Amino acid sequence: MPTAAILLIGNELLSGKIRDENASWLAGRLRSLGVSLRHICVVPDEPPAIIEALHRLHPAVDHLFTSGGVGPTHDDITLPTVAAAFGVGVQRDAELAGIIAAHFGERLRPEHLRMADVPEGSVLLWAGAMRWPVYTFRNIYILPGVPQIFRAKFDGIADRFASGAFYLRSLYLDADEGAIAAHLAYAQANFAVMVGSYPRIDDAGYRVRVTVEAKASAAVNTAVTWLCQQLTPAQIVRVDDPVTAAAPDAEPTAP
Amino acid sequence: MPTAAILLIGNELLSGKIRDENASWLAGRLRSLGVSLRHICVVPDEPPAIIEALHRLHPAVDHLFTSGGVGPTHDDITLPTVAAAFGVGVQRDAELAGIIAAHFGERLRPEHLRMADVPEGSVLLWAGAMRWPVYTFRNIYILPGVPQIFRAKFDGIADRFASGAFYLRSLYLDADEGAIAAHLAYAQANFAVMVGSYPRIDDAGYRVRVTVEAKASAAVNTAVTWLCQQLTPAQIVRVDDPVTAAAPDAEPTAP
Repeated sequence: MPTAAILLIGNELLSGKIRDENASWLAGRLRSLGVSLRHICVVPDEPPAIIEALHRLHPAVDHLFTSGGVGPTHDDITLPTVAAAFGVGVQRDAELAGIIAAHFGERLRPEHLRMADVPEGSVLLWAGAMRWPVYTFRNIYILPGVPQIFRAKFDGIADRFASGAFYLRSLYLDADEGAIAAHLAYAQANFAVMVGSYPRIDDAGYRVRVTVEAKASAAVNTAVTWLCQQLTPAQIVRVDDPVTAAAPDAEPTAP
Repeated sequence: MPTAAILLIGNELLSGKIRDENASWLAGRLRSLGVSLRHICVVPDEPPAIIEALHRLHPAVDHLFTSGGVGPTHDDITLPTVAAAFGVGVQRDAELAGIIAAHFGERLRPEHLRMADVPEGSVLLWAGAMRWPVYTFRNIYILPGVPQIFRAKFDGIADRFASGAFYLRSLYLDADEGAIAAHLAYAQANFAVMVGSYPRIDDAGYRVRVTVEAKASAAVNTAVTWLCQQLTPAQIVRVDDPVTAAAPDAEPTAP
């Protein structure tokens, strides 16, 4: 199964000024594409911190996605920092510079053209109706921080990551986690599925959401059936319908 | 200024099943307490990944906060993994075991008591009205993943981290980032403030939010006044009121 990591670059996420939308969105998208997301890291707009994270993450996974720091302002340092991390220079991409110049016309400033200064060896991906390319360097996909653009750019290249979806069913239970822990451990150990357990203390109408996941839909259904047999009817608030090979993973939800 | 890192432990965050609420909330709280958050990392429920992150983060900051993995189920491995990371064993805390036993009464299971098995050398912090302590080990604060409990536990011990707030003002502009980039860079370089720039492409009524922050309120106000003088009236949609020493940082907002 291919693996991935996400590196979010931006002081605004660490200071709590802005809440991340990109990693949580991309986590769900990668899951539905069958890619195993292994790490999410958030670092400040500082070259040493970014370089440390790039060096650590890029050899550890198949695909590394960065978010943020590719605009025209002083805090947009991702492109030159990727270059520095790998000991290459930056060079102005003539095609991209031409697009930027045409887009801004008389309003063009030197700062705008910084967005065409890419690490030497970069490959620019143009996909579908995208007016603007995705910057890639080795196994690193360099995406912008603005959520709408981040999503559009990823979706423009998503096909290259597809690797078979996960299947997921949830059981919503009125039960104490400790009372069912042994069943969950048994199911995970014996049915080739991953079992998660997420307690709630609000008024959702259940106390624990148990998730059962696998790439094989039959394994998910077998494990859920077995778990239901171990529980009392009073403990089961509701259970997702069986999954079929035609109906992969649902959208992510808030906890 | 004290520094901090947040380590979120949980497959559910990496698979997109659950959206993080704890890091984004704690980022804002740490900011208002005057603590500089340097890193956020999300790792799966796997000892090697958790141990790597603990070894990397705990010496790099003053305070390390973990979220998740402290319940009674098979995927709750944070306490024994912290012990393993530092080469110590786990031992059952008698006081905490007694509280757990009293709480569950006849429903007590062996799995519940795992929550009292803490790394040797842990200090349990009991604060205010908390029924349950915060686990700490060296500079690591081990918090649960359920958002309501995570928040209540942190708030119970928040006073120990207070170190003077940051002051923040925002300018909401109808301007292109590239056109104002030179002004922002000048302000950051000359007024002892941190300047951020966050473009939007939706219907918020402005195109860029510029933030100006510092621990000295006067520096924030001076920089904002100077920036307003560099802009045309048509570029300024609105500007936050001046900050005073009695009115620290606002709540974090969505982007």
